[in-house]
Amino acid sequence: MSTLRIGIAGLGTVGVGTVQVIETHKALLSARAGCALEIVAVSARSKSLDRGVDISGYRWYDDPTEMADADDIDLVVELIGGSDGVAKALAEKSLQAGKHVVTANKALIAHHGSDLAEQAQASGAAIYCEAAVAGGIPILKGLREGLAANGIKRVYGILNGTCNYILTEMRDTGRSFDDVLEEAQKLGYAEADPTFDVDGIDTAHKLAILSALSFGTKIDFDGIHVEGIRSIAPIDIDFAKELGYGIKLLGIASTDGDVVEQRVHPCMVPIDAPINHVEGSFNAVVAEGDFVDTVINEGRGAGGGPTASAVVADIIDIARGHRVPLFGIPAGSLRDMPTRPMDRHVGAYYVRFNVVDKSGVFADIAGALTDNDVSMESVLQRSRDPGQIVPVVMTLHETEEAAMRRAVDQISGIGAVVEPPVVIRIEAL
Amino acid sequence: MSTLRIGIAGLGTVGVGTVQVIETHKALLSARAGCALEIVAVSARSKSLDRGVDISGYRWYDDPTEMADADDIDLVVELIGGSDGVAKALAEKSLQAGKHVVTANKALIAHHGSDLAEQAQASGAAIYCEAAVAGGIPILKGLREGLAANGIKRVYGILNGTCNYILTEMRDTGRSFDDVLEEAQKLGYAEADPTFDVDGIDTAHKLAILSALSFGTKIDFDGIHVEGIRSIAPIDIDFAKELGYGIKLLGIASTDGDVVEQRVHPCMVPIDAPINHVEGSFNAVVAEGDFVDTVINEGRGAGGGPTASAVVADIIDIARGHRVPLFGIPAGSLRDMPTRPMDRHVGAYYVRFNVVDKSGVFADIAGALTDNDVSMESVLQRSRDPGQIVPVVMTLHETEEAAMRRAVDQISGIGAVVEPPVVIRIEAL
Repeated sequence: MSTLRIGIAGLGTVGVGTVQVIETHKALLSARAGCALEIVAVSARSKSLDRGVDISGYRWYDDPTEMADADDIDLVVELIGGSDGVAKALAEKSLQAGKHVVTANKALIAHHGSDLAEQAQASGAAIYCEAAVAGGIPILKGLREGLAANGIKRVYGILNGTCNYILTEMRDTGRSFDDVLEEAQKLGYAEADPTFDVDGIDTAHKLAILSALSFGTKIDFDGIHVEGIRSIAPIDIDFAKELGYGIKLLGIASTDGDVVEQRVHPCMVPIDAPINHVEGSFNAVVAEGDFVDTVINEGRGAGGGPTASAVVADIIDIARGHRVPLFGIPAGSLRDMPTRPMDRHVGAYYVRFNVVDKSGVFADIAGALTDNDVSMESVLQRSRDPGQIVPVVMTLHETEEAAMRRAVDQISGIGAVVEPPVVIRIEAL
Repeated sequence: MSTLRIGIAGLGTVGVGTVQVIETHKALLSARAGCALEIVAVSARSKSLDRGVDISGYRWYDDPTEMADADDIDLVVELIGGSDGVAKALAEKSLQAGKHVVTANKALIAHHGSDLAEQAQASGAAIYCEAAVAGGIPILKGLREGLAANGIKRVYGILNGTCNYILTEMRDTGRSFDDVLEEAQKLGYAEADPTFDVDGIDTAHKLAILSALSFGTKIDFDGIHVEGIRSIAPIDIDFAKELGYGIKLLGIASTDGDVVEQRVHPCMVPIDAPINHVEGSFNAVVAEGDFVDTVINEGRGAGGGPTASAVVADIIDIARGHRVPLFGIPAGSLRDMPTRPMDRHVGAYYVRFNVVDKSGVFADIAGALTDNDVSMESVLQRSRDPGQIVPVVMTLHETEEAAMRRAVDQISGIGAVVEPPVVIRIEAL
């Protein structure tokens, strides 16, 4: 039986998980892969750190990019992270040397995926990144192979467990975003610097990959409209529930074949939609194909075990001789598809104003909607003590985002309307 | 660009769907597959039947098994159905001739899967059957490849849309099984002879495949304990709800590495479990791996489009040169694993007795439980008009099935207990 010789760069949670999977399941994996999987080298910041796994049997590299030069390494696992720098250098150098690359690095693929796919194609080596999107859920394989018979029109999901945990906690306890974030940080569910997670950037990285793979387009991270969850208040979660919705941070990509729309923002989703039942730190991806209809995939989006499961699945694919382009079609065939700007997005909206309730204010609001051809679906108001500040919630029928913005701006200018309005998009899922 | 030449045997809903997918997406599929997919021949019962697709460009076979002899066919799609007869002959003859086989035939694989896997291995041809389990959901690929890094301990699912539709309707409308089945037959959701569906046989076919693939065991359809949904009454659905459960027909396979347990029967599942949110005709499969934790896959389990999506995904895999054994490891390595008999199953139970309420009956019931070392978790009784027949519902703590059966038999013998008791297993999911 032949052997696939592996170098692992990066020994954080996922790197250690990858070592554990390969060493725990040696016999099982070689039966499945049709060849032995052997870790021959590792690299990380500190050689001496106790990680709970024995790495003394593997060759050590201070500089991971040197793995690309090693004659006895067939496949490099890149778990360093970051869109550029060492991670990119290692991936590129490895592919140029004809070594296969498996990576969990969503930022790298979201920024340089099309180039890396081309380099892999040129060298005949494979590059896979299952672990970069939705952790343990094998959704890239699902889209690239399992649903390969379909034209995909829309793909969306809960792609960041930290945000989903925070929103779930806010809903269940009524606490504020800041309060829940602080607790999540203490529990280790959120990073000390939570920007990438709570501001939607991590979700956008993953969406860029899903989008390119689903639609056969060049990866276009910069074309994604990104908003995070900092603006979500408990009162909006309550109003959402009253209206029959839950609030989730979604990444949504869709296409009509000519234009692609990619957006990351909090969404109101029907309370009985499957995606609304995805709780806590779980991730889920929903794909809509023209023949298969809707397929929903749910599982753990982070953590050493689940992410390593995806890393090793890619390794087994390569060991089995499975070669599919990173985005499902040859790199040269990936299309440059224009992005629909968010102003041109068409959807329904939830809008909350804080209003000093006095006569005439509703007539002014109604006038602002009419002036901008925006039509109201429903209105909710909790109390009507004259002179007090009360929240007024409206849902708007489908309209172009620019028209909604004009109407909301006009309403904000009404004297009785205090504080900036809150707008949350309502998704028909 | 090379061409993969395809013969399709069987032009029912799935066959027609397969023709439609391949003809609709010609350019897209060849970009993805790396070669052209060309239908060269078809076979069905009637050549003249109008199926809504033009088959005049394909060579016609009255006898589908002759496709195995055709030099210009690389891959045979078997959509005839049935565990033996023509379907089996076609699959075997095709593999022997070195032709790849794609089938949607769960009965064929559930009965002869291990043999067919060996024949494929011997000939170097591939056999895949994604469409045989859960329609459009790419769950076989998910288990065989996406989760290949994991030891799988349990896999379970809603594998029959007809049963799930009937149970969903019964819950939502309070109507009886017979009533809803009759309507489902009128609407075309259930067959004129619904035996395979409602008695759990169809689910068992699919479970046999999931089980072999997940655990690396020889397929063992006869080792499956099978019960259908005919015994489910609206009153049990109501009681389940009161107790915090929904009722689903599940196929469940689990192993401790030495013994395998495979069972199909109605289950009470926690009302907030993801599997309980799978509604109507949708299917779902849940896999539990030792590293990935829980992965849930949901989608359409039947219908021409979804099932054809799975058939064509297999075809694309073969066109891409992807070769993995049918059950993930070489046929010769599949283990013969003993089955745990249902008597030895350990679980919790819901039991409903109809009782003529008179003093002393509860003491007798409690005595019967104690006599058999079975312990009660809760009891529910709706009304207590003395002398009337009232339902008494108990939930039992985890116990061996044989002990539960002995206790229930003893209770049935109590004079005040009328009609046979209803037992539904409660699953910890």
